[in-house]
Amino acid sequence: MAITLAQQPYDVDVAIIGAGSAGLRAYRAALAHTDRVALIEGGPYGTTCARVGCMPSKLLISAADAVHHVEQAGLFGVEVDAPVVNGPAVMDRVRRERDRFVGFVVESTEAIDEAHRIKGYARFIDAHTLQIGDRRLTVKSVVIATGSRPNVLPMFEGLGDRLIVNDDIFDWTDLPASVAVFGPGVIGLELGQALARLGVKVRIFGKGGFVGPITDPVLLAEATALFQEELALQPDAEVHSLERVEQGVAVTFDDANGERVTEIFEYVLAATGRRANVDSIGLEHTGLTLDRRGVPVFDSSTMQAGNSHIFIAGDVNNDRPLLHEAADEGAIAGDNAARWPAAAQAGLRRSPIAVVFSDPQIALVGQTHRALVVEGADFVIGDVSFADQGRSRVMGVNRGSLRVYASVQTGRFLGAEMVGPRAEHMAHLLAWSHQQGLTIDQMLDMPFYHPVVEEGLRTALRNAQAALRTASRFEASA
Amino acid sequence: MAITLAQQPYDVDVAIIGAGSAGLRAYRAALAHTDRVALIEGGPYGTTCARVGCMPSKLLISAADAVHHVEQAGLFGVEVDAPVVNGPAVMDRVRRERDRFVGFVVESTEAIDEAHRIKGYARFIDAHTLQIGDRRLTVKSVVIATGSRPNVLPMFEGLGDRLIVNDDIFDWTDLPASVAVFGPGVIGLELGQALARLGVKVRIFGKGGFVGPITDPVLLAEATALFQEELALQPDAEVHSLERVEQGVAVTFDDANGERVTEIFEYVLAATGRRANVDSIGLEHTGLTLDRRGVPVFDSSTMQAGNSHIFIAGDVNNDRPLLHEAADEGAIAGDNAARWPAAAQAGLRRSPIAVVFSDPQIALVGQTHRALVVEGADFVIGDVSFADQGRSRVMGVNRGSLRVYASVQTGRFLGAEMVGPRAEHMAHLLAWSHQQGLTIDQMLDMPFYHPVVEEGLRTALRNAQAALRTASRFEASA
Repeated sequence: MAITLAQQPYDVDVAIIGAGSAGLRAYRAALAHTDRVALIEGGPYGTTCARVGCMPSKLLISAADAVHHVEQAGLFGVEVDAPVVNGPAVMDRVRRERDRFVGFVVESTEAIDEAHRIKGYARFIDAHTLQIGDRRLTVKSVVIATGSRPNVLPMFEGLGDRLIVNDDIFDWTDLPASVAVFGPGVIGLELGQALARLGVKVRIFGKGGFVGPITDPVLLAEATALFQEELALQPDAEVHSLERVEQGVAVTFDDANGERVTEIFEYVLAATGRRANVDSIGLEHTGLTLDRRGVPVFDSSTMQAGNSHIFIAGDVNNDRPLLHEAADEGAIAGDNAARWPAAAQAGLRRSPIAVVFSDPQIALVGQTHRALVVEGADFVIGDVSFADQGRSRVMGVNRGSLRVYASVQTGRFLGAEMVGPRAEHMAHLLAWSHQQGLTIDQMLDMPFYHPVVEEGLRTALRNAQAALRTASRFEASA
Repeated sequence: MAITLAQQPYDVDVAIIGAGSAGLRAYRAALAHTDRVALIEGGPYGTTCARVGCMPSKLLISAADAVHHVEQAGLFGVEVDAPVVNGPAVMDRVRRERDRFVGFVVESTEAIDEAHRIKGYARFIDAHTLQIGDRRLTVKSVVIATGSRPNVLPMFEGLGDRLIVNDDIFDWTDLPASVAVFGPGVIGLELGQALARLGVKVRIFGKGGFVGPITDPVLLAEATALFQEELALQPDAEVHSLERVEQGVAVTFDDANGERVTEIFEYVLAATGRRANVDSIGLEHTGLTLDRRGVPVFDSSTMQAGNSHIFIAGDVNNDRPLLHEAADEGAIAGDNAARWPAAAQAGLRRSPIAVVFSDPQIALVGQTHRALVVEGADFVIGDVSFADQGRSRVMGVNRGSLRVYASVQTGRFLGAEMVGPRAEHMAHLLAWSHQQGLTIDQMLDMPFYHPVVEEGLRTALRNAQAALRTASRFEASA
């Protein structure tokens, strides 16, 4: 590190804590303003996304899809014996491709000017000073991009090596016989279903009845029933105990019929949320106001914590823990950190989009049903079932529904929730429409090819259009 | 038929010739203005799309996909024996589901007021009089929606029952051993690849080097090579003779090495374009100006033939032979026909979108590369290869490329051509953007989730953005 220049009041202009997806983007954004940047990372290089998140989970899901496709072949007149899941081969591809993706990230991180990189865990000594191992670094501004980690609840204490989190799965060299998944959120649902399709005995336990990020109660009920057709899924389970036994973990719970049963699983997967990595970076010395989870209170358009010189980007801020959002946040934070003490500028935030890569997929776009209800929005719902949607039926993926929400006052598309085929693609069409503030009428003027799953979206939009007309007639006559 | 009213100068206000996708929509549009409508159909009810087009072809493709998925399973560590294609079972699902789709169309057609329906082939006696069997019908205005049929070239004469068109395939009760496909256009490519994947020995012969609707020479070269990896495809073949022999048809041609060979195929599929059904409807008595293919010259925004009371919608007009366009054209034609003699109004035409459901899929959106070159447009190209696109690689579908075209002057997205994964979905995102006149910059402000195939589109857009900047710097300095 040769950054320190005697005539500068600080060792560096911008220090970025964490070289993950958000930190790397913050680094590049800051670099556009100043060469006096430090990118600080205590752990190995490589992002949550590439190491233990998006990429390896999609690799596991692709293997699960392969099993499912083989099992579906008969529907189309194609005869095939039951597939044999070669656990070592499945995990070998997952790890090999994962390592390849991680390799690219590590490579590009290591390509960064060595003078800008510091290895070590950083901790605030005061608002402008970081301690990293033996050294102190005074900093003009800081971007906190320390990410998050799985939230392991006290109920899992004592399970030792039989307790796993998502990270662990992707280092397996074979598939286990059984896994009890706690938490049917995005991670639990994706991994739980993939493992089940790969022949692992899986049971998924939830609390409160939620499945993935769905907030629309009608859709939640449908999704729950859909997933329960193939998965032992109890979204509101009564679990009495978890006990480490010789073969693994004995889980005692009330089954779907309310009978108390005990089943033994090789592993327990804790997918009970994630927590911000803010507990050991000395935030108490920054003077920042923290929320109840210990995360600095910040502005999600500027990433600025209070009116300070500290910015916070990526999963650590608990706002939108998604790669593309982390990248946007990093860019905004890095830019504003470098400009500081100039006033922080609002950066580009895109319309919300969330996808669960389950089968059927789940997608949420724009405002959720819950958010609309909470804010008391005057909205109508247009829905479609994919059960009889032409192309979906042709492909044998005719399950699920889409519900679109539209403003009675403006006719605008407000948001959507979906469980169904090709939701990841539909979500893009919807999110782009949302960001442009399109009305339902405008969306219906757009082309819909034939025969495509998007024709299901058109049906939902037409139903929303009809509901809007009824609502406006009602309001006109009221 | 109780439509004739003595006090009216014509028997009906609007006669619609053809009860296919265009005719049915024209009927509904006309009905919004007048009850004096006649929907005339000589053949069985049901549309080209449902009977012999979009739907049954996608059903056959789904079976082919099933085979392909089984064969790909090993890539993911899922072991399975070679699939056995049960021909009768494959064709049974195709026909059963096809009949179901056709059934819905027939049902809704038969639900139309009987007084509005005439069975029989219509022929113009003069511009306001139709002959249908024994009866004459005087009409105020007419919508011609007679569709198209496969174009069978003279070279196929003498092949008898061994010459088939797409329609024939969907009535098969088993799969044949071999088929020589003539014409690697949309139909030839979709059916040829599907049959090949289902174990039928297939050879596809073309003339002029074209594959599907691709016009971009770079993409055409790549697509040709991609399809040739799995298909015996000669887009510019020298075929010397076709001869009916006992086992089928002997095709003598120069193979890829230029060697003259003769192969015997059970069937020859003529997929050499389609021709408008205009040759037996007495257009010569209408006084309309016809183009060289015998189709009335018409305005594609109003569907009006010349300044006449005759409108022309759907495949018959040879303009955009796609279901969603036929429906739009029918709606415009029916509306304007009913309004006649009021001036015809331009109806909603959407941004062009075309998809080939091959694997990888092909899609064209907006202006084609050829159209841009012909009009001398000042445009840049942004491209992406899917070979290393993250999610595509995860799913094992990392083949193909996307090329987007952008205007140097306005920065707007002008069009795109693609061969690659999930092209049908990418095409919607692109067509909606095109219809809204978005710039490349505006498109890049939209959300792209991770990890998705749409990130490949983002790369292409970024490359187009860079090319636009270079082009504008060049123009500024020139």
